[in-house]
Amino acid sequence: MNDPRESPSIGDVTIDDEFFRPRREVNREVTIEYQYEQLEAAGTLDNFRRVRDGERGGHSGMWFQDSDAYKWIEAASYVLASRDDDDLEARVDEVIDLIADAQGADGYLNTYFDLEVPDKRWSNLNTMHELYCGGHLIEAAVAHYRATGKETLLDVARDFADHVDEMFPEQIDGAPGHQEIELALIKLAAVTDEDRYRDLAAYFVDVRGTTDRFAWENDHREEIATLEEWEGDEGGAEGDGEIGADDEDADSDGDAEEGNDDAEGGNDDAAEENDEWEDAEVEPYDASYNQAHAPLREQDAVEGHAVRAMYYFAGATDVAAETGDDGLLAHLDDLWENMTTRRMYVTGGIGSQHPGERFTIDYHLPNETAYAETCAAIGSIFWNQRLFEATGDAKYTDLIEWTLYNAVLPGVSLDGREFFYDNPLASDGDSHREGWFDCACCPPNVARLLASLERYLYATDDEALYVNQYVGGRAELSVAGTAVSISQVSDLPWEGSVTLDIDAAEPATFALRLRVPGWAEDVSIAVDGEAVDTAVDAADAPTYVTLDREWADAEISVEFGMSVEVFEAHPDVAADAGRVALTRGPLVYCLEGVDHDRPLHQYAIDPTTDFAATHREDVLDGVTVLDGEATVPSLDGWDDELYRPAVETATENVSITAVPYYAWDNREPGEMAVWVREA
Amino acid sequence: MNDPRESPSIGDVTIDDEFFRPRREVNREVTIEYQYEQLEAAGTLDNFRRVRDGERGGHSGMWFQDSDAYKWIEAASYVLASRDDDDLEARVDEVIDLIADAQGADGYLNTYFDLEVPDKRWSNLNTMHELYCGGHLIEAAVAHYRATGKETLLDVARDFADHVDEMFPEQIDGAPGHQEIELALIKLAAVTDEDRYRDLAAYFVDVRGTTDRFAWENDHREEIATLEEWEGDEGGAEGDGEIGADDEDADSDGDAEEGNDDAEGGNDDAAEENDEWEDAEVEPYDASYNQAHAPLREQDAVEGHAVRAMYYFAGATDVAAETGDDGLLAHLDDLWENMTTRRMYVTGGIGSQHPGERFTIDYHLPNETAYAETCAAIGSIFWNQRLFEATGDAKYTDLIEWTLYNAVLPGVSLDGREFFYDNPLASDGDSHREGWFDCACCPPNVARLLASLERYLYATDDEALYVNQYVGGRAELSVAGTAVSISQVSDLPWEGSVTLDIDAAEPATFALRLRVPGWAEDVSIAVDGEAVDTAVDAADAPTYVTLDREWADAEISVEFGMSVEVFEAHPDVAADAGRVALTRGPLVYCLEGVDHDRPLHQYAIDPTTDFAATHREDVLDGVTVLDGEATVPSLDGWDDELYRPAVETATENVSITAVPYYAWDNREPGEMAVWVREA
Repeated sequence: MNDPRESPSIGDVTIDDEFFRPRREVNREVTIEYQYEQLEAAGTLDNFRRVRDGERGGHSGMWFQDSDAYKWIEAASYVLASRDDDDLEARVDEVIDLIADAQGADGYLNTYFDLEVPDKRWSNLNTMHELYCGGHLIEAAVAHYRATGKETLLDVARDFADHVDEMFPEQIDGAPGHQEIELALIKLAAVTDEDRYRDLAAYFVDVRGTTDRFAWENDHREEIATLEEWEGDEGGAEGDGEIGADDEDADSDGDAEEGNDDAEGGNDDAAEENDEWEDAEVEPYDASYNQAHAPLREQDAVEGHAVRAMYYFAGATDVAAETGDDGLLAHLDDLWENMTTRRMYVTGGIGSQHPGERFTIDYHLPNETAYAETCAAIGSIFWNQRLFEATGDAKYTDLIEWTLYNAVLPGVSLDGREFFYDNPLASDGDSHREGWFDCACCPPNVARLLASLERYLYATDDEALYVNQYVGGRAELSVAGTAVSISQVSDLPWEGSVTLDIDAAEPATFALRLRVPGWAEDVSIAVDGEAVDTAVDAADAPTYVTLDREWADAEISVEFGMSVEVFEAHPDVAADAGRVALTRGPLVYCLEGVDHDRPLHQYAIDPTTDFAATHREDVLDGVTVLDGEATVPSLDGWDDELYRPAVETATENVSITAVPYYAWDNREPGEMAVWVREA
Repeated sequence: MNDPRESPSIGDVTIDDEFFRPRREVNREVTIEYQYEQLEAAGTLDNFRRVRDGERGGHSGMWFQDSDAYKWIEAASYVLASRDDDDLEARVDEVIDLIADAQGADGYLNTYFDLEVPDKRWSNLNTMHELYCGGHLIEAAVAHYRATGKETLLDVARDFADHVDEMFPEQIDGAPGHQEIELALIKLAAVTDEDRYRDLAAYFVDVRGTTDRFAWENDHREEIATLEEWEGDEGGAEGDGEIGADDEDADSDGDAEEGNDDAEGGNDDAAEENDEWEDAEVEPYDASYNQAHAPLREQDAVEGHAVRAMYYFAGATDVAAETGDDGLLAHLDDLWENMTTRRMYVTGGIGSQHPGERFTIDYHLPNETAYAETCAAIGSIFWNQRLFEATGDAKYTDLIEWTLYNAVLPGVSLDGREFFYDNPLASDGDSHREGWFDCACCPPNVARLLASLERYLYATDDEALYVNQYVGGRAELSVAGTAVSISQVSDLPWEGSVTLDIDAAEPATFALRLRVPGWAEDVSIAVDGEAVDTAVDAADAPTYVTLDREWADAEISVEFGMSVEVFEAHPDVAADAGRVALTRGPLVYCLEGVDHDRPLHQYAIDPTTDFAATHREDVLDGVTVLDGEATVPSLDGWDDELYRPAVETATENVSITAVPYYAWDNREPGEMAVWVREA
């Protein structure tokens, strides 16, 4: 294992990028503000007030609703790390005071348990999410501390973590039902320099799949806190979340009620009990749902609920890196290979099945019913970033770019006000983003990712500066002991031109590593106008091209060849058989009904077609569209025929226009298809 | 309108046919016997005993369970019409005695109402199926009378019909929620020569869609008999039918619970209330579900629950024929054209959507989630037979043949013991027939159709003898006043050779009309070895070829050219885009996983491929299989790749074997596809 790479602090990077600027502005001005309003509207802050005031009962909303407050603080803290905002800071401080006041003397904090079932703490690890909420508390605290230097929330998080550390494993031996605290504890260990938080994270990573605690809980519901109690309390009845929605992976897809694909959140999902197990006394416990079917090191494929899996593997990668466990790291890479070569959509989306929001089996990647949850894609970015930090391998940062553009950004409308929780790759016209209001699920995850994008652009280790993502702006970093300033201008995702200005405080020798994207047709690099023979072949991409020299003040011009690629899927992917998908650079494209006269299933594309890429400022806030020819069947002779002998079918040539998949469903509602029939 | 054609009595026809003999034997010896056992096991006969004995409460099973007894009598009567069976006849008589003893003095009879809610008769026409059960009572009575000459059950049916005639429309103005009594009353009118039963049928046909009674009932549940009461009573709790199952169209598909396609019976279905409307106080009434959205003459497409639609249109066709209403008949033909050119599977199956078991929109014909209920196909045969009788048009009898082989027979396993309720045209390997036990739904309908197949083979009118179906055996018919004996030997469905021996009691001049199937490539006919120039072109088929001459004793040899046809679907059928289906003669073929090494989605067929048809006695109890070449993608270079540029894809030629669709799922479980990708 190499020495791990460090991602920069948010404050060390300033993003100023044509493509991402409007998205980050909307995120800050609309999404994070709305997120705050919801904390009052949904009773989330009132829950903390009630606990602070010593009340009992009256919990409002979902049983894991505390995490909404923590996620808002985390996102707001990322904003505060990159810009001054006194009003926002004051509001954050107010919410933190409230949280601090609600915390018990022993460090425990969970308003649902405190208000409703205080004597049942830690009795139902599988379902009740105390550790999950605690993980978000810790992440918020670390973000807030890093942004402001204030320890107000960090103290709360430490007290909570210390309490957990006392309880686990001495008094309770078991893993969380929903992973999250593992990666959070690693962050806490980093800012506090306390190894025991890391050890606790390692314990939670390792204990999963080694005990039968979840199954026992499932068989002893009368002895533990359960969702039945939650459903029966006022919170369940009054909350605006739908019954059975499950934290950030809640099912909020309106289609679910229309029989298209039955909606179920997972095995701790009350809705599922109604639908699937209404006659069963006790629903069977499926250990693979939360990756507890085997110890991690014995799992040979990515299984179960995709968000849980990503959070788990992210935390485990942290633990492997922190403990120098090369075997575990290699095993996690095996799981990554399984995911990326068997169980991932062409967009980078993961979790192909709506019921259980989960991975299914190799090559099972249905398009119209794809779940491909936005949160799971974000979790994949979390995991890939950690794998990169631990290994320095460009395949991980390359997948981050692809996933960001094609599996996370589709989750947000261009105006930032509506969200896809699930991201189908084909639609008959009934799939549409929904407002935040239905469920406080994916939007906060998008908010915290976009607000912390700075951390993904560069990285450093003892001898190198990595340029991972081509997003314009500036960074002030320390490389090999020297302060280095780097400015970037990027034409991505529309063109492959990038200019980097390096300015070292004093001349310093280090390796500048530029990620050569997997999509690059070719790569040419010039330093101060002079072409560099990089000895890197685009066929090897994704990889890093290394410019190892003494750097003082230099301008690096990079040109990644960008052309339209027509992709096909592995022959075992039934959903994509006889179909192709268009990509250009880092973007997956799709056809939308609004651009076409015929139903989309009638179009067929010859893979050798020349597509013209044209940037159109008038389309979808400015996108590069792909224009080309396709064939459609002639409609001659079909009057009042439904079936006929397939004599040589006459076809007609027609024009088609493909738009970036991330931008679909921002115009008139209609059909959409990523995979189009091959002519 | 021509003079209507008459179908023969069952006793006038003796079926002796290679293909149908085993099916009819199993039907008689297994299915109808099992059907009888279920009458005791499910408490159906006990319900009648309780009413006979003056008990209250204790109703067992579904609220429409009386119809199970009637359906058994009907099927058994068809058997009795074709062969002596003292034991069976005695059992039928016993059940009839019981029914007669249970009938009220006023003619009313419905054990659910009599036992559970006697004061709520006729209060809920939409849901509670008193008229539906009464229709099956009448059909059974007519069948029994025709088979045995006994009027024991006919008297019960007359008393019931007289009671209904008193009530409707004078005291209650409304249509049945589930059509059935319309066509039954026409049968009753025929055997009793009572026009008022025909008039009552016409009333029920016409009143539908003209009142808001169903909607009113839906909004006033507290004032009427409801399924809530049924669910709450012992019958609902004790019955072995599943909650929410709905008469012959009940949902008994185990897949429904697996999220594949949410299962719902219809708008009077309690299960649907749980799934779809659990938060709604009153579920909205969808008038199109039971064809009450407009008066029949203003309906311009086949809508709603497919079985209800077929029974309705069958009854309406009877009424049109009986009343000489050419306008109504023409309108029904328009509906038939809509169905067959927009809303019918290539198999003849209808009703593409599981929720509501219904027609949806033009060209919406999904394959894997096809409902295509066996009962709906049987209903289609009922309707088509009546349309033929009224018009003499071969297109109707041709569709009967196609539907029988490809949409009804698939509903029964080769051993006659398991049944498909829904008939998907593609399966990933999870669709399998189920035993009778789950629901007394499609199997009794299959039983009565197969037991009365005699009625579909021939027809006569004043001047012609029609040979409609090529099924071997003998018939003794009266044509143009002369007794004519006809023997048939048929090689269908495997080859197109048919031999007919005509033997008239005395030389008589009449037209012998032989249906030229739509699938015939060509047709050649010889009478006593001498070729006849029929002036009929196979391109005009389906049609009748008419041999108009004086007949005494003659042998007619018919050869319909049978070859493999590769079909394509209308370009607007999204599910079949870029796909072809194989047929040969009257049979639709499919690929099954058990015959192939690759997943079925990898095969692509060139429509110009020569397929070899080979009869294989060792396969599926003897079928003609189609062998040919197809292409599959090469798997080279796909190691650990999931997506790659669609460079010219290498393909390999491999052999495929297609088997008749009706015979699928009778070997190892596996994939199945009717529509295969076109190369």
